[in-house]
Amino acid sequence: MRLSEGVEWALHSCTTLALLPPDATLPAARLAEFHGVPPAYCAKHLQELRAAGIIESTAGRKGGYRLARLASEITFWDVVQAVESDTRAFRCTEIRQRGPTAIAKARYSPVCGIARVMYGAEQAWRRELEARTIQDAVDSIVRDADPQVAVKALRWFQEVLT
Amino acid sequence: MRLSEGVEWALHSCTTLALLPPDATLPAARLAEFHGVPPAYCAKHLQELRAAGIIESTAGRKGGYRLARLASEITFWDVVQAVESDTRAFRCTEIRQRGPTAIAKARYSPVCGIARVMYGAEQAWRRELEARTIQDAVDSIVRDADPQVAVKALRWFQEVLT
Repeated sequence: MRLSEGVEWALHSCTTLALLPPDATLPAARLAEFHGVPPAYCAKHLQELRAAGIIESTAGRKGGYRLARLASEITFWDVVQAVESDTRAFRCTEIRQRGPTAIAKARYSPVCGIARVMYGAEQAWRRELEARTIQDAVDSIVRDADPQVAVKALRWFQEVLT
Repeated sequence: MRLSEGVEWALHSCTTLALLPPDATLPAARLAEFHGVPPAYCAKHLQELRAAGIIESTAGRKGGYRLARLASEITFWDVVQAVESDTRAFRCTEIRQRGPTAIAKARYSPVCGIARVMYGAEQAWRRELEARTIQDAVDSIVRDADPQVAVKALRWFQEVLT
């Protein structure tokens, strides 16, 4: 199984936007450049994030993208759900309703014991992602990043935001 | 994202084998018939389950498959891992090492804060699957199944196991 690659990029982009000074915006081309990805790839996922109300864009010469709400109010789950078209790993095809023991559809319990366990595990995954926000990602970057990266990022921001 | 369809079938097959009388075995063709799936599909996954030490086969005229250990000692995770070639949903492509802030590889922390959250969520998913066994699936079937299914299954077993 595999989450769309866009999930990684979208999480990094939201984290980058969270690091911008207040009221600053970043054009899509700059976000793509910052993460070393093709602009078209970037544009697709920015649209998804905007449609989900996670980021917003401003028009004009200095227009670009920024977070639509506080980083502490954007969960990992919000971002995953915005980019991943299908967040379910397990699909139940109702195997129990086939073969020699099949009975009338109406007589089956809504969810079989096997699907219930699989869905429960996915709920646990989702709860973890709901409990973490983009602010947590910002905090860990500020805590863990090499000072050299911080200096380079600061310089790059100063260059592109002026 | 999506788990292989074989996961559902493998979980149902292990549960069916757990319902057999002690020492009974079921030929692959019968397991396929019981679940209404093509025999070739079934054979592939039975091989995976056998390679993982979850089921075993007996030779001879009355040969077939049975669980290799107690149903209470086979977790959902054991079965998922046996059938799914890749149980990781999130792949980190080290986006942080690209673009204008890139520094020498050796200076990055082993895992970035974004990947750490994503991996943590997958651990929560895995822990849930490790905590549930095929015996739990058997118990829920015995509890929830319509009596009509139970009667049909019993008749079918009597027919094929004699």
